[in-house]
Formats: sequence, C-alpha cells, structure tokens
Amino acid sequence: MKNPSKIIRSDNLTWPDLERKEYKTAGAGFRDISRYVLLGEREDETGLNMQTRYFEIGEGGYSSLERHRHPHTVVIVKGRGSMILGERVEQIELMDAVYVAPGTVHQFHADRGEPMGFLCVVDRYRDRPEIPKDAEELLEWIPDPEVRKKARI
Amino acid sequence: MKNPSKIIRSDNLTWPDLERKEYKTAGAGFRDISRYVLLGEREDETGLNMQTRYFEIGEGGYSSLERHRHPHTVVIVKGRGSMILGERVEQIELMDAVYVAPGTVHQFHADRGEPMGFLCVVDRYRDRPEIPKDAEELLEWIPDPEVRKKARI
Repeated sequence: MKNPSKIIRSDNLTWPDLERKEYKTAGAGFRDISRYVLLGEREDETGLNMQTRYFEIGEGGYSSLERHRHPHTVVIVKGRGSMILGERVEQIELMDAVYVAPGTVHQFHADRGEPMGFLCVVDRYRDRPEIPKDAEELLEWIPDPEVRKKARI
Repeated sequence: MKNPSKIIRSDNLTWPDLERKEYKTAGAGFRDISRYVLLGEREDETGLNMQTRYFEIGEGGYSSLERHRHPHTVVIVKGRGSMILGERVEQIELMDAVYVAPGTVHQFHADRGEPMGFLCVVDRYRDRPEIPKDAEELLEWIPDPEVRKKARI
C-alpha cells in the first residue's frame, strides 16, 4: 500500500484542495461561520482517532450554543473574540488554548471588531451536539442572567 | 465537581502558565527545539483522548528522525521549513496541515532562514518513538540517497 502521509497546502487560511463546508447545527442559531476538516475524516486517514477542523467566524458572527459529551481542544489562530464557556463569558486571543470539558455549554463569538479563526480537535467518533430547545431550557443551561445575555439561540 | 473547562492564555507563542519543556528523544540527534503540552496531559483534562502540543524549532534546528505506530496531525503556525516525510523531502509553510501516517519516518527542519513552530496532535496513550540505531539501519529506513542526505541522526 502506498504510504498515505501527506501535506495539505494552505493559502492564507484556506486549503484549496479541501472543501470549504457549510457550518450547520440543526435547529440552532449561528451566523457567518465556515469550516474545513483538515484531517481525520477521509478514507486514507483511518490511522487518526481525532479530527482537526478549522472554523472561521466573520466579524459579528457566532457559532451555535451547544453542549455534548465529547470535549473540545481549541486553539485560536486568527483574530480574537469571546466565548461562553460554562458559567462564564471569556475573552479569547491569538494562540490561546481552550479546553471545553464534556457537557459544558459553549458558544464562540467574533465580537471584537475582526473575524476569528480557530482549530478545533475532537474525537473522530463522537456524540451529536445538543441545543437548548427553548428559552426555558436556556434558563436551565445558563442560570446567570449576565452570561445568558451573551447567548444567541 | 467544578467544571474543569479553561483557557490557557498565550503571550506571543509562549504560554506563561505552562512549563516550557525540554525536547528529548533518548539517544537521538536533535537541535534547538522546545515544546509545550497545551492540553491533554494533566489530571483535570482526563476527558481528552488526545494531546495537543506546540513545538518550536530555532533557525537551523531539527527534531529527531523517528517513526512510531501512532500518527501525527501537524499544523504549522509559525514560519516555514521542510521535513522528511517517508520517502520524500517536503517544504512546509504557514497553516499547512501534515498527516504523518503510522510507521512513517519523519523529521522536521527549520532550514529556511527562520524558526518554525507547529501544533502536533497525538493520541494521549501512544507508543514511544523508534530511532535508527546506526547508519546501516538508516540506510534501510531511507533508501533514497537524496532524501537520506537531509537526515540528521
């Protein structure tokens, strides 16, 4: 068998040989976000137990508010922004590393005057994200009204 | 239990709250390389099945020439350089993603007039790297003399 090692070339935070995918979380609110799966999804990458994705959020955009059993490792590689991380709102900057522990509510916001891009590593086989089904459930997920004000659903 | 989610703050590709570790591969040659384990090593990160590390190689430096059963996901986040990747020598640039498949001989070189930094994701539990024990074994690992010229052991 041919050795499947490879280099996936980047051109200014795009990867021309990969598909730029729609970001979608069924039923959830999100705005101006795109993603690439850099490694861990394709047939010739079965050695990998994890997937490494790149997400980019345009200025003013945000990811879906969600939680799931699988954890996230995130590293910011472009711009800055903020995030809901459990019971806090945190500012995040270039090359900060974020651990989103299992079951933690989280949402990324590019809310500081520029786009934000980050790498996000997850288990290859993982559970689907859960989103709050209504405003009442949001109240349970985020009891603190100051943090809840930040949430977009 | 307190939610172990957290943000590990970066200051210009250092992480002041983390230990900057010595790079070491027993018995192997390497030069001017440091590493941080960003996530996946500590007690309160047991949710993670993978470790995300940052390596930086000073200008003219290189990592150890090695191979192992566990694969690597690498993303270049600073500078540029080149690498031995199986039977080839490849140039690598900012934000290129590299898949080092199981068993593939590899070595990173910051040989293009600047330091090179990269994220490297691996299984949390993995086998130890193997290095060639002598010049004769290197000949088996890298049959092509042009590629072998690049190797430092």
